Amino acid sequence: MDYASITTPSELKRLNINQLGGLCASIRERIINVVEKNGGHLASNLGTVELTVALHYVYDCPKDKIIFDVGHQSYTHKILTGRGEAFDGLRQNGGISGFPQPAESEYDAFTAGHASTSLSVALGFAEAAKQTAAQSDVVAVIGDGALTGGIAYEALNAIGSDHLPVTIVLNDNNMSISKNVGAMSKYLTRLRVSKKYVGMKNEIKRAVSIIPLFGDGILHLMDKGKKLLKRIVLSNKMFEEMGISYYGPFDGHNVGELIEIFEQVRKKKGPALVHIITDKGHGLKSAVTDPEHSHGISSVGAISSNDFSSVLGEFLTDAAQKDNRIMAVTAAMAIGTGLEKFSVAHPDKFKDVGIAEEHAVTYCGALAAGGIKPYFAVYSTFLQRGFDQIVHDVCIDRRAVTFCIDRAGVVGSDGVTHQGVFDLSYLLPVPNMTVMCPADGDELKEMLKFSLTFNAPLAIRYPKSYTVNRAHAPIVYGKWENIAIDKSSHVYVLCAGGRALDIALAAVAEKKLNIVNARFVKPLDTEYLDGINKRGNIIVTIEDNMRAGGFGMSILQYLNNSGMLCKFASLAHDDKFIDNRDVCSSLNDSGLSRENLLNVVKSLE
Amino acid sequence: MDYASITTPSELKRLNINQLGGLCASIRERIINVVEKNGGHLASNLGTVELTVALHYVYDCPKDKIIFDVGHQSYTHKILTGRGEAFDGLRQNGGISGFPQPAESEYDAFTAGHASTSLSVALGFAEAAKQTAAQSDVVAVIGDGALTGGIAYEALNAIGSDHLPVTIVLNDNNMSISKNVGAMSKYLTRLRVSKKYVGMKNEIKRAVSIIPLFGDGILHLMDKGKKLLKRIVLSNKMFEEMGISYYGPFDGHNVGELIEIFEQVRKKKGPALVHIITDKGHGLKSAVTDPEHSHGISSVGAISSNDFSSVLGEFLTDAAQKDNRIMAVTAAMAIGTGLEKFSVAHPDKFKDVGIAEEHAVTYCGALAAGGIKPYFAVYSTFLQRGFDQIVHDVCIDRRAVTFCIDRAGVVGSDGVTHQGVFDLSYLLPVPNMTVMCPADGDELKEMLKFSLTFNAPLAIRYPKSYTVNRAHAPIVYGKWENIAIDKSSHVYVLCAGGRALDIALAAVAEKKLNIVNARFVKPLDTEYLDGINKRGNIIVTIEDNMRAGGFGMSILQYLNNSGMLCKFASLAHDDKFIDNRDVCSSLNDSGLSRENLLNVVKSLE
Repeated sequence: MDYASITTPSELKRLNINQLGGLCASIRERIINVVEKNGGHLASNLGTVELTVALHYVYDCPKDKIIFDVGHQSYTHKILTGRGEAFDGLRQNGGISGFPQPAESEYDAFTAGHASTSLSVALGFAEAAKQTAAQSDVVAVIGDGALTGGIAYEALNAIGSDHLPVTIVLNDNNMSISKNVGAMSKYLTRLRVSKKYVGMKNEIKRAVSIIPLFGDGILHLMDKGKKLLKRIVLSNKMFEEMGISYYGPFDGHNVGELIEIFEQVRKKKGPALVHIITDKGHGLKSAVTDPEHSHGISSVGAISSNDFSSVLGEFLTDAAQKDNRIMAVTAAMAIGTGLEKFSVAHPDKFKDVGIAEEHAVTYCGALAAGGIKPYFAVYSTFLQRGFDQIVHDVCIDRRAVTFCIDRAGVVGSDGVTHQGVFDLSYLLPVPNMTVMCPADGDELKEMLKFSLTFNAPLAIRYPKSYTVNRAHAPIVYGKWENIAIDKSSHVYVLCAGGRALDIALAAVAEKKLNIVNARFVKPLDTEYLDGINKRGNIIVTIEDNMRAGGFGMSILQYLNNSGMLCKFASLAHDDKFIDNRDVCSSLNDSGLSRENLLNVVKSLE
Repeated sequence: MDYASITTPSELKRLNINQLGGLCASIRERIINVVEKNGGHLASNLGTVELTVALHYVYDCPKDKIIFDVGHQSYTHKILTGRGEAFDGLRQNGGISGFPQPAESEYDAFTAGHASTSLSVALGFAEAAKQTAAQSDVVAVIGDGALTGGIAYEALNAIGSDHLPVTIVLNDNNMSISKNVGAMSKYLTRLRVSKKYVGMKNEIKRAVSIIPLFGDGILHLMDKGKKLLKRIVLSNKMFEEMGISYYGPFDGHNVGELIEIFEQVRKKKGPALVHIITDKGHGLKSAVTDPEHSHGISSVGAISSNDFSSVLGEFLTDAAQKDNRIMAVTAAMAIGTGLEKFSVAHPDKFKDVGIAEEHAVTYCGALAAGGIKPYFAVYSTFLQRGFDQIVHDVCIDRRAVTFCIDRAGVVGSDGVTHQGVFDLSYLLPVPNMTVMCPADGDELKEMLKFSLTFNAPLAIRYPKSYTVNRAHAPIVYGKWENIAIDKSSHVYVLCAGGRALDIALAAVAEKKLNIVNARFVKPLDTEYLDGINKRGNIIVTIEDNMRAGGFGMSILQYLNNSGMLCKFASLAHDDKFIDNRDVCSSLNDSGLSRENLLNVVKSLE
């Protein structure tokens, strides 16, 4: 049975259960082929093929709603709902998104890109169905990793309280399942798979250990944040008390069993949790020699050796040898933020708190209050979760927390839910915060050195990679750096970060420009600004951030306040969401380009 | 034993246990007297007198750290740590804060104003103590209400995982304790107070029911959000599995018993949870006839009959009679945001999710996706918690959620942690968001009418109260309203909200001005702006928000972009935290005043 023969869930329902195994194999092959070409989340999607087939076999979408938490395990769902052919364009510009998008298909109930929201979404749909008397069942599919996020608990509380028919599928791919799990289910003993499950667990361990990078250390790293809260959730006493029926654990790769259980659960009205055990890379073993395949992978073209994250990791690893105040904190992003090496070299100085950005920020604030020098390495888009804590628990009392904000600016193929284009806007209004943008890896290193003796909140924001290291002047607090000065030019291009600088430097061949590295976005170098705020001068800012509340507006405000004599324009992202799937076209579409810089300068001359 | 005889915790330690009862009575009297005069959180502080005395009797502050969650139950702590006399100035300008402030005393370990952060803070201090080999014990005091906040679970996960000596005191003043609580403790049976506790519970119920406003409905309202997650936390199986020792429940008003238990807990090294039952208004019954005393109360001078919250409550209550799509959502702020009446009239359309702003926002996004018209009534400062969810779960897909943002702008005596001065800055950069500011109650009503047919994300932000209702032109999307036009004047004052308008109107007697009600802060009325962007004109904006990223900067950006001909200045809050304790002085200090408006205009002429 070929994936291409299914273009709607109703066609799927016409198959008999014996045909589904073949369909799953075909879907799995399709996913592997496309992800190898386009990049994407491979392992998590291979883990949910049978689950998704079973859900669509039992539930009636789009009337019923299936909410995929984080959304990056929705590939099978996409293939089954009319996008089997379009799946070729996964994560490409103009192609389908790697995450559910209602704009893309009526089968995608809700956009999801950040973890732990599916339970809130499911409860909202269930309440709406009740209020509108709609016959619509709601299923949330949430991984065990997403259960470290606080919002999931806020939602669980509400689900238990409201007692609406929300079915939670806990997709459990954690390898270190506690032995208590086996003692949990008393509902559906017939379907219990304890023995199978133990066997599966060993199989997974074997599969993982053949992948070189995934040694015991990393395995441990990935598991640690997850397991404790999962135990809470899996304490069936808790579910009983909350009025949530618990079913499981089941083999998440037995599609027939899954269909049977979902059919039963669907008949009962009331909140239920179905606990399934899946193998994250199911069906992948023989195909894989490259360890990166086991998690999200980028398409080949996007890989860069000049990653800021490596600089961060190396600097902190070295610095912590000499300075024992240093600690590194991450929220389930040890590898992506470059802290892997640090975590091995300084396990006692390293904390991965799991998907828990709110906690991470406050925790760092208290570490700083206790005399530690914490570095929170986090993606720009995820730090949005900690905004309130940045204000209260770091900035009010000027706690010396350093935020190493990776993936700032546009991010490429993850698309709209992962753009790091808001951080300058939400950080600049917060008093006591200093904000820097490095132009390249060497400058990031200098900024990190600077941070060691800087005793106040500090945010350093940078995208994934830089083009090339350039020579730099030493860092002086609040001072910018001249990159290219041409006394015959009256145009000053103030660049916030490496991407901005690359744009300006690309334009200098065609147009005489003064190029300034505005390494401090807050505070501004007002002395520098005063010096160039002259009649006849043109100042243009470039930043990979929203225009509203960003670097350019901050400059404009200062210029206006001190009596504006020059002309001013800013290059930044306009007031709309960016769903391009590559960095270049995202920048180009927003006018963050050499061409537009030249046009803007011309228009002001 | 008089509170005034204790000026440091070491003096407290010299007392024998028999003297502590008298001390507690004296502290309680002091709290009642000052709060009746200055306002503040009365009931929660009366509930924690014995607890705080016991903690300071056992632990050695400031070496040891006591972290009060939310911080508003720290009055006894302040009195015992050298601020017994200064307590007179509670919540007054220049006086002591209603919340812990390290800047105020070395005994205040960490600033706290928003709920649910104490566990993260405690873990940070414990880790710092371990890293620095400091002999410092850490205690977090958290109320059961704060346990609905997701960050508390993120922290619990980390505490269980890190296994550091953090003592969590769960201050449980919920009246509807589940009967399972009694079955929980198997550690310290000797100290069990089950019988006492049942008696106490009935006593509390009686005490509350004599207060007219606190009928069964309200009681139910307050309890609902709290009880389910608390059950989870109090399942001792969970604590055992997490490696957190559970002790309790204990009578939180028996100071001798509390000392005994804290002395035992302190000796053991490792995470522990001490569950105590307190009576929120303990010792208050005879003194109180005014129901407002049972929660946070304002000082008499600050009470206003023109509260925006009443307008919201009445409008939604009426509107929901006719429009059955309407639902009202709040996060533990039903009374403060004006939804009390709604909750009684439309219990099925009302959701109090507890202290869970992240969940509330995402939930509303899904309600909207399901065809409901949700109104999330929330304080500006608390909505900071939901920033990421506003971006992802509401704005990306243009979900028609209406945010009714109360206490926007400066808030008075709660001080620095409660200022609602960031919302314009974090909302304006988010695409698809519309932002409005009503000048008065009548205009809020018109805006709410407008919202009924507006099918996209909408934020309406307003402070606690307005001065007077004025006649208004009908609301037209994106259009401003002329309030006072004087053709002989070249000065245009663009006002975002009622406070701004009051300032402008106060100045018009001395200076000819055109006064504009900029009811839409996003989108801007660009047609209006184009009409007044002329050489010789002066535009001044007024907003009760940070300058960075606010209304004024948005105007300036537009003017600069379209070729600035006029002169421009903005009145807004400068880049520092505001800890004034009254609205007027906070506005004045930031130059949000008639005088400063006149000066600014003069300087531009």
